[in-house]
Amino acid sequence: MAKEPDAPAYQERAILQHRTDSLTILMLLGLLLLTILTVWLFKHRRFRFVHETGLSMIYGLIVGAIIRYSSGDDHPPLTVAKIVGNKTYTSLDPPDYLAIYLNRSNATDADLDKIIYTFKGAVAAPLQEPPLERTVTFSPELFFNIMLPVIIFEAGYSMKKRHFFKNLGAILMYALVGTAVSCVVVGFIMYGLTRVMQLTISLNECFIFGAFISATDPVTVLALFNDLHVDVDLYALVFGESVLNDAVAIVLSESVETYGKLSSEEFRFEALLQAFGKFVGVFAGAFAIGSFMGVVTALLTKFTKLRDYPLLETALFFLMSYSTFQAAEAADLTGIVAVLFCGITQAHYTYNNLSGESKGRTKQLFELMNFLSENFVFLYIGVSIFTFEPHRWHAGFISASFLAVLVARFCNIYPLSFLLNLGRSNKIRPNFQHMMMFSGLRGAIAFALAIRETDTESRQMMASATMSIVLATVILCGGFTTPMLQWLQIRVGMEESEQELQNMAGDSMRTAMSSQRHYSSMTGAAPYRAGPARPRATPSPGSRRQTRGRGTSSAASSTMGLKSFYLTNISGGLMNMSSGPTIMPCIPTNMSRSPTNRCGSPPDMSSSSAISMPGSPANMSTSVTKAIVCAIAGVILKRR
Amino acid sequence: MAKEPDAPAYQERAILQHRTDSLTILMLLGLLLLTILTVWLFKHRRFRFVHETGLSMIYGLIVGAIIRYSSGDDHPPLTVAKIVGNKTYTSLDPPDYLAIYLNRSNATDADLDKIIYTFKGAVAAPLQEPPLERTVTFSPELFFNIMLPVIIFEAGYSMKKRHFFKNLGAILMYALVGTAVSCVVVGFIMYGLTRVMQLTISLNECFIFGAFISATDPVTVLALFNDLHVDVDLYALVFGESVLNDAVAIVLSESVETYGKLSSEEFRFEALLQAFGKFVGVFAGAFAIGSFMGVVTALLTKFTKLRDYPLLETALFFLMSYSTFQAAEAADLTGIVAVLFCGITQAHYTYNNLSGESKGRTKQLFELMNFLSENFVFLYIGVSIFTFEPHRWHAGFISASFLAVLVARFCNIYPLSFLLNLGRSNKIRPNFQHMMMFSGLRGAIAFALAIRETDTESRQMMASATMSIVLATVILCGGFTTPMLQWLQIRVGMEESEQELQNMAGDSMRTAMSSQRHYSSMTGAAPYRAGPARPRATPSPGSRRQTRGRGTSSAASSTMGLKSFYLTNISGGLMNMSSGPTIMPCIPTNMSRSPTNRCGSPPDMSSSSAISMPGSPANMSTSVTKAIVCAIAGVILKRR
Repeated sequence: MAKEPDAPAYQERAILQHRTDSLTILMLLGLLLLTILTVWLFKHRRFRFVHETGLSMIYGLIVGAIIRYSSGDDHPPLTVAKIVGNKTYTSLDPPDYLAIYLNRSNATDADLDKIIYTFKGAVAAPLQEPPLERTVTFSPELFFNIMLPVIIFEAGYSMKKRHFFKNLGAILMYALVGTAVSCVVVGFIMYGLTRVMQLTISLNECFIFGAFISATDPVTVLALFNDLHVDVDLYALVFGESVLNDAVAIVLSESVETYGKLSSEEFRFEALLQAFGKFVGVFAGAFAIGSFMGVVTALLTKFTKLRDYPLLETALFFLMSYSTFQAAEAADLTGIVAVLFCGITQAHYTYNNLSGESKGRTKQLFELMNFLSENFVFLYIGVSIFTFEPHRWHAGFISASFLAVLVARFCNIYPLSFLLNLGRSNKIRPNFQHMMMFSGLRGAIAFALAIRETDTESRQMMASATMSIVLATVILCGGFTTPMLQWLQIRVGMEESEQELQNMAGDSMRTAMSSQRHYSSMTGAAPYRAGPARPRATPSPGSRRQTRGRGTSSAASSTMGLKSFYLTNISGGLMNMSSGPTIMPCIPTNMSRSPTNRCGSPPDMSSSSAISMPGSPANMSTSVTKAIVCAIAGVILKRR
Repeated sequence: MAKEPDAPAYQERAILQHRTDSLTILMLLGLLLLTILTVWLFKHRRFRFVHETGLSMIYGLIVGAIIRYSSGDDHPPLTVAKIVGNKTYTSLDPPDYLAIYLNRSNATDADLDKIIYTFKGAVAAPLQEPPLERTVTFSPELFFNIMLPVIIFEAGYSMKKRHFFKNLGAILMYALVGTAVSCVVVGFIMYGLTRVMQLTISLNECFIFGAFISATDPVTVLALFNDLHVDVDLYALVFGESVLNDAVAIVLSESVETYGKLSSEEFRFEALLQAFGKFVGVFAGAFAIGSFMGVVTALLTKFTKLRDYPLLETALFFLMSYSTFQAAEAADLTGIVAVLFCGITQAHYTYNNLSGESKGRTKQLFELMNFLSENFVFLYIGVSIFTFEPHRWHAGFISASFLAVLVARFCNIYPLSFLLNLGRSNKIRPNFQHMMMFSGLRGAIAFALAIRETDTESRQMMASATMSIVLATVILCGGFTTPMLQWLQIRVGMEESEQELQNMAGDSMRTAMSSQRHYSSMTGAAPYRAGPARPRATPSPGSRRQTRGRGTSSAASSTMGLKSFYLTNISGGLMNMSSGPTIMPCIPTNMSRSPTNRCGSPPDMSSSSAISMPGSPANMSTSVTKAIVCAIAGVILKRR
């Protein structure tokens, strides 16, 4: 063991270390504050070119560069004892703990103090040794255990279910099939190009890269979409795809790793089957746990009088939701996926049982946590670009990955859209397809997956490439969303309620309309965006009959009668609730259109075909059957 | 180095470890959920004998016992490499990191992997070796960096300033002088008794024990007081003492440690002076940082139009408050103390600048965080009683500490009350004194301070003794608060507004009264306690003149005229705000009675004398001067 020279005593070093930690956190907090103030300034001045997440990342970049190129002197000198060539520890794996015995009092016959060290990480290459404090202080655990669950849960909880379930077939197609296609395409392209560049990366590693680079980010584009009020179908498609495909990418990357462990070099069919089985199992398991916990919360809030105490109710809601994450993790499933389904279930059932105050509390709480997490994540990405140590910049690899991502996105969107359009009456138009192609930017999930393991050289190259892609897509695609929408002639500034009315047909629906309008005017954008300066055109009764051109989907019409019954009977009491102006609840208006989620069975493609055949008698009867089953579930789970 | 037999491969062990962690968190979450449901049941059934914190602790105890006496088999076997007798590391202090080089691929000429281990802790006695995973997984950092700041901030933010500032002199007396007295008394008693028991504990260690065992807990008793609506003066005294004395105890324990380092054995006056200097410096520094950050937040919220975006505003508020903690920690001060003053300042200035929605959001957010933190802390205390490994139960030491705590509390309350009563017109009556004596129960702070360092044998005995005291006082004193109040004939069920009206004298105040009543009816109990079943008697206009017996303090009267001016002019706009029924803001009704906090100077005893001489001209003029200075500060900081 050797000791670095001039190290201060341990107590002093601990204090120095603590101060450095505090300063680091303080710096991040300061950056977040700066972001908030700038965001406010931008909103105040109606400047929409840069979104807050892009802003966070840019601030992070600046600070990261400053840290990288200025400091190094004021770090407290840390002492490292190096143990080399000790041959008595024979295992191939490092131990979890090291215990050393020190004679700290320096007396001859004193007791030896037992000092415990925990495993922190492995640094692969022993050739160059970066400053230790940078190597080891990086922990992706915070992302995976706190930030990402919050972001994904909020995505599920604040989802606009109406259009999500209407487009469920297309969304599942893009998210499940599309992500798999993207993963495979990226994998093969990277494998081919790295052969050309003579890099030694296995095919399996290329597929892992393909899996995590296929996770598109819902944050930036959707926030802009929300601000601009783009077409709701486009919004639903982009939202649904990006949210579900995060889950798919996570499970996919794990499956590919499973496959890699089972078949080392040559192709083995059982390994592939097993990986596929793992994929289905993890997805179904996470879905089951998420829905189960949501349903339990719904039952608890229904059958206790907990609503008399909003604080207790909110605490219960919060704890149940976080328990979902931990339960899934404890069951070796993917917590983030479970949390997504939990969020959807909570929004669907539990939300309606909550007291008015708890509705506001939960919405606001998760909104705030989501806002902070999002900005923190992007800030951290920005800082990491410079301070992340296991970087391995390889221009060829990065260029290849950009190309691969582009091609893979192309192979995902256009062929699948073509296939989907064969069966859709409400076609996904070319400009929507171009916009979906454009909005496939990579963000937090891709970043977090990439930095999770940087053990090998190829993994380090992948991490650097992922960071470059995240940086480029968030800043460029995020920044050019508005011009792109204009260029593609996609209408913005549409009100959801107007579109709903466009989509409605049939005179029998007239009676349900007024309540419908009432709901949709509440299901607005996120509250903080609803600043006083933004006018929201609520349609007057006269504008109701006004139907604008283009092909309208009449999918919703077949179940409309039952829906209006359902709305007035099952959750009719809701309408009397005085939800304040600040609470914008996301009440399920399209209850009978979400059979997969409510009945506890995994999502399937049948609802896609239901959309394609509006008004056919067979579809009508299955819809009615489903609606009855689901109405029973609703009666059990929801407070009347 | 030796390796435990039959250890699974590292990957598997990591997965097992992760699952165990998830299960542990899940268990704690489940316990919290159970607590919530039980609390609801108790509230529902009007069963007030056990408070939620006591309940959490009892649940924790049960689960801790189960863990302790059942498990041990299903823990994943962790591997430990022991390095003994390696003499090349010559320092007396353990290094921060250990790096070992392993040949993981087991090929002859492969690169060695560098494995990093971080310092986890020292286990003093190498004789008996407890299961390692229990020794090392305990981390008090979570308490000190997350839970306690939340609890203390919420205490400051939700404080009922009116009566706090009215009784400021007495509160400071109990908190500053009383805690010091308690610390010294405990120190000497413990020193004497341990000599008798022939334990080797230095006098300095006894004083450290005295410091941290003197921190009384505000949580349990106050929640009961709040439920029962006890006399507001008693409430203010107990609240103020327990909140401030946490801060004092923390700083005191650090000062005593400073003293201990400077003078090892014999008494040294400079060391004492230096410790005293540190005490004053840390306290003043924390006060300055806390107030400064609060004032900056107030200025930011006043001079930006951030209130148009409540989410941004709430995020700013949250981040500034947490930055206070980190800033104080980075400046080597005590974050918790800074956070307390920050909370008070935020409630005093920033709160009035916030938009109506942000008021609700911040209140509800911190209320929820506080609720969860409190219950988690007490749950954790309960679990720790059984699972905490460095326990050293010594019946004599524990009995001695119970005695010492009792005597110290006696020496704190009664002599100081006698001194205070010499100068108070509104005497602290004997039954109030008995109640204060009784309500000095120990909780989270004492626990956290005790477990922070358990390096030596005496520290371990102290930790065990502290846990026993916490357990006994929370369950017994917490449980018997209601009977004790009845037995001491302290009136409960009083409305604050009634008492205010009792305390008011002079016809000139009549005009301010209606607005006064309006405020105090909003400054109620915590919202979740305000269930629909509890009737709140709002006094009718007729009951206003009805003054009930016993000596009333007319301290507030001298500044009443200015106050009414202040209320209507400076923050008069508040009344027009539509704060919903669920939002119970804590609006500063007694603005002119809080000179110390508002003018940025540290709290002094002058306000105590102001209380003792109501209506005297000199006092009147200083009050008016102070009020004018503070009104100017208010004009600058508060939104009109």
